[in-house]
Amino acid sequence: MDAQPVDILLIEDNQNDIELTLRALKKNGIANHIYVVNDGEEALDFLYCRNKYAKRNPNNTPKIILLDLKLPKVDGLEVLKALKSDPDKKIIPVIVMTSSDQEKDMIESYKLGVNSYIKKPVDFEQFVESVRQVGMYWLLLNRLPSD
Amino acid sequence: MDAQPVDILLIEDNQNDIELTLRALKKNGIANHIYVVNDGEEALDFLYCRNKYAKRNPNNTPKIILLDLKLPKVDGLEVLKALKSDPDKKIIPVIVMTSSDQEKDMIESYKLGVNSYIKKPVDFEQFVESVRQVGMYWLLLNRLPSD
Repeated sequence: MDAQPVDILLIEDNQNDIELTLRALKKNGIANHIYVVNDGEEALDFLYCRNKYAKRNPNNTPKIILLDLKLPKVDGLEVLKALKSDPDKKIIPVIVMTSSDQEKDMIESYKLGVNSYIKKPVDFEQFVESVRQVGMYWLLLNRLPSD
Repeated sequence: MDAQPVDILLIEDNQNDIELTLRALKKNGIANHIYVVNDGEEALDFLYCRNKYAKRNPNNTPKIILLDLKLPKVDGLEVLKALKSDPDKKIIPVIVMTSSDQEKDMIESYKLGVNSYIKKPVDFEQFVESVRQVGMYWLLLNRLPSD
């Protein structure tokens, strides 16, 4: 893992959504290097190279982060808050992908500095299409300092 | 103007880029209500309903803002800083669209909290295609509290 750059860090606990997301990204040739963590605590450990990720290269920063909101241990809004209040991590685009369409989650996400907020479609094909569009936009059209 | 909701506030001083952007958005049926201002000072006057916009309805907030960086009077990074340090305005997605590919502009934009950073293609058709993709992503796929 350390030898390869990480294109996308996917922070998601739903195994079905993980599989669909990986399939959509790989099928469309959008991202080859995707790393998946299943809760908010592990996400922060990964990004800050702590605990089981202590030996990870801290310069190997993901290009984008796909973040679910309802996560075990540390929830998505807490992860977002930690990243967007850290001047070094703030430059990584964070795209919330959630099944929540609660207005308060949306407003809170934007106030914390989320880059984009996507509601996961319930329909299988629409879900795959949304992931494809998100991947295309953020990895091909949007520019990042590391490009 | 006050009677209609504003989908996009376009902050751009280059007349050619304005025309291309409007054409791309309208041709693809993405946005009907686009308001254009030509410098950073007028952009802030518009958003804060000051000076010539004193009678504008402050609840008529644009859904998204397309922001050039090199602007007369108040430059794009200053506009971005003002909006993203204001809890009320922070929730409006700001997409920088610029001809600058200077790493420092990009990093500074992300540090100030830009939602997305797009480099304007020089080629006419690619420019139109980029605008189309930006419009589709931010007005159709991305979710906003007002949706």
